[in-house]
Amino acid sequence: MKEAFMKKIPFLLVISWYALTAQIDTSFINSLYRYYLTQSACYASLKELCYDIGHRLSGSSQAARAVKWSYYMLKNYGADSVFLQPVKVPHWIRGKKEQCRVWLNGEKTQRNLKVLALGGSAGTEGIMSLPVIRVNSFDELEKKGREEIEGKIVFYDVAFDDALISQGEAYGKAVKYRSRGASMAAKYGAKAVLIRSMTSARDDEPHTGMLNYDTAVCKTKIPAFALSYRGADSLSSWIRNNKVKKIELFSECKTLPDTLSYNVIGEIKGSQYPEKIILVGGHLDSWDVGHGAHDDGAGIVQSMEVIRAFKKLNYKPKHTIRVVCFMNEENGLRGGYAYADETQKKSWKHIAAIETDAGGFTPRGFGIDTTSGLFSKIFVYRDMLEKYLIQYLHNEGGGADIGPLEKLGVPCIGFIPDNQRYFDIHHTMADTFDKVHKRELELGGAAISALIYIIDRIVE
Amino acid sequence: MKEAFMKKIPFLLVISWYALTAQIDTSFINSLYRYYLTQSACYASLKELCYDIGHRLSGSSQAARAVKWSYYMLKNYGADSVFLQPVKVPHWIRGKKEQCRVWLNGEKTQRNLKVLALGGSAGTEGIMSLPVIRVNSFDELEKKGREEIEGKIVFYDVAFDDALISQGEAYGKAVKYRSRGASMAAKYGAKAVLIRSMTSARDDEPHTGMLNYDTAVCKTKIPAFALSYRGADSLSSWIRNNKVKKIELFSECKTLPDTLSYNVIGEIKGSQYPEKIILVGGHLDSWDVGHGAHDDGAGIVQSMEVIRAFKKLNYKPKHTIRVVCFMNEENGLRGGYAYADETQKKSWKHIAAIETDAGGFTPRGFGIDTTSGLFSKIFVYRDMLEKYLIQYLHNEGGGADIGPLEKLGVPCIGFIPDNQRYFDIHHTMADTFDKVHKRELELGGAAISALIYIIDRIVE
Repeated sequence: MKEAFMKKIPFLLVISWYALTAQIDTSFINSLYRYYLTQSACYASLKELCYDIGHRLSGSSQAARAVKWSYYMLKNYGADSVFLQPVKVPHWIRGKKEQCRVWLNGEKTQRNLKVLALGGSAGTEGIMSLPVIRVNSFDELEKKGREEIEGKIVFYDVAFDDALISQGEAYGKAVKYRSRGASMAAKYGAKAVLIRSMTSARDDEPHTGMLNYDTAVCKTKIPAFALSYRGADSLSSWIRNNKVKKIELFSECKTLPDTLSYNVIGEIKGSQYPEKIILVGGHLDSWDVGHGAHDDGAGIVQSMEVIRAFKKLNYKPKHTIRVVCFMNEENGLRGGYAYADETQKKSWKHIAAIETDAGGFTPRGFGIDTTSGLFSKIFVYRDMLEKYLIQYLHNEGGGADIGPLEKLGVPCIGFIPDNQRYFDIHHTMADTFDKVHKRELELGGAAISALIYIIDRIVE
Repeated sequence: MKEAFMKKIPFLLVISWYALTAQIDTSFINSLYRYYLTQSACYASLKELCYDIGHRLSGSSQAARAVKWSYYMLKNYGADSVFLQPVKVPHWIRGKKEQCRVWLNGEKTQRNLKVLALGGSAGTEGIMSLPVIRVNSFDELEKKGREEIEGKIVFYDVAFDDALISQGEAYGKAVKYRSRGASMAAKYGAKAVLIRSMTSARDDEPHTGMLNYDTAVCKTKIPAFALSYRGADSLSSWIRNNKVKKIELFSECKTLPDTLSYNVIGEIKGSQYPEKIILVGGHLDSWDVGHGAHDDGAGIVQSMEVIRAFKKLNYKPKHTIRVVCFMNEENGLRGGYAYADETQKKSWKHIAAIETDAGGFTPRGFGIDTTSGLFSKIFVYRDMLEKYLIQYLHNEGGGADIGPLEKLGVPCIGFIPDNQRYFDIHHTMADTFDKVHKRELELGGAAISALIYIIDRIVE
């Protein structure tokens, strides 16, 4: 039996390999890569978005301009139809530049530390001048309790865990202090919160990002700020050496009434299965600093380019290819929810939803949901995909904007670029166009298009 | 039979997987990554090499200082023994800054183009002032022949093929104009050669690199220069529009007598098989511009760190781990040859030789020779290695310095970092310390150490 088995295996493998690859034309994938690296508009479009529009927080005039821009870009790229999906979005504004001044014992001049108010934060209502207390975890916060916390500024001195290989994992571990830190501290009577920026980069750039007031934990909404890595190191050392007398904080940020905005959607109608959709998207909004170049200008131009690429290469997809420029990923996810709502209402059928929102860096692969067997269907091509820099196929996909779709059972896919440099500039003034490498951006776009092509070919 | 087969396969797989992985302690690999990302000296050493010594072309005083530096570093890192291997190296000097001035018809002022003489090039012996002829291939050069070429400066207007996914492949295709262009043109009576820089980056940095005069093709050694991408674009357009009257070239470079230098070798003696060596190395020399940070300061600090890591983590390898800092990879490969010579003379036995000379960028994987079954032995761990960012195992290994060992039958391995940014700065003034990302450098080092650990465990 062993002999028969040995003989049969390679034969079976060859047969099944042939059957599978017969559906895929690698010369078309080669054309896609050639197109992206020599003719695509990704890089030029990103430059336009970054320099002509700039950052574009939900509710801002720039966000409104970005909606119009992407609408006309999708038209110009040759989408069969382009439409807007109305979304009511939060409208938070930062106001005047924030201030953080540290008074040290025995010194006459204060030290200014660079800070950014967290997104959604309340303002300080004038200058707040209070003592600071340092904690290294929620556990320590709880232990200190109201007795030590009340009336103070809480500094969560919790750094990124540099020992983790994935910066995304480090982010996942540390981000709770950004999102929940304010309400947790307010519960014990704290008046404001300082956090370390979500980064491993030892520089002086503070990183903003969403704060979620949890009224179930505490009804009081206290102001919250991120310090830069170096600033946090200084403050930590001053506090540990009992040098800090008090801290002055100032911010003017506030939340205005919700504003009408839009998801921007463009598509190529499927030739065989027009009712079945392969979705690809990123988010059009960004934080109100820098250019939002990697986060997520890159994802937007990569998504839009799928239409331009297929049109230019005259590829007629069997399924409908739908590009969604989601609004409000950063501070509300209203676009993602609105899209999922309409999906339910209109019974839209998605055979896959791909999100690109992890930066325009060199591609590594995709995270793919195992729902409906999509992961294993694609995994068959693992060896073939290696030379296209798709070298990591992870069996878990998704992203924030397509999260609500995932709950509806849509097989979700997240594009995975290399993430070592992403959190250096994520949500900072430094997330600017010059940080994006032309070829890396294009190769990411090519990988996404290639995957869409494969799904279009192998899924009915 | 089918049923028995279905039942047996998973069982056999589990058994063999268990047997294989039992030799490998993934918790040790985790410790290695933790060490590299939080305690390693890679980044600090590279800073020292770049700022305290700087670039270090073979034969230069900086190269001599780099020899001493790496000798003491290896001692400090706890190598059981450190020794120098004498190597006679070429000693080429650039001399005063080169000049390239283009006279355009009807213009009174010349246009200065940034150039770098190619390594090994002859000088112009004063200012050379001649007409230029543009060719786009060796074929075109041959077609034009002596009639059109004689007495002129030949401009090889051949750009990197941006359509190729691998920048290394683009380099491989274009580099013949740098290495053989001068002799090929001299054969038809050309007086000097200009080439496009070996890069896809649209900037104004010229890239130097080795030129090999082939006396079998032509005995006359004519000067050769690289133009920056933008400079080459300008010149190309001027020539195509018949605007160029003449070009003035100036360089003072020359080749001095060979100089005594050294490979620097440090090792940890193997506990079970001291006579069997796992080699890891990079090259200590660099071009005479920039810092030689990615090329190959990164490879040097990654190689040396293997000793520090194993000592700090108290890992006692079964085989001898030998770190080789090769001298003269850039313009002669004399270190590589000297090492292979001594290998033959002393019958050194290498079970693997690993080279890291492709930049300190985020790791992707390794190219591994199939000699002696090493590739398939390592390929078994493919899935396990994914999370360590070793996601691409290619069945062809090596590198320039270990090339001569490969010819002796040593299984060779090349570390493969991402190469999209490498040729932006390769052999330029811009290959400086600030271009190296701390975590990417460290993760490359960790990947190399992890692979050495695995080889040490699985090979007898």
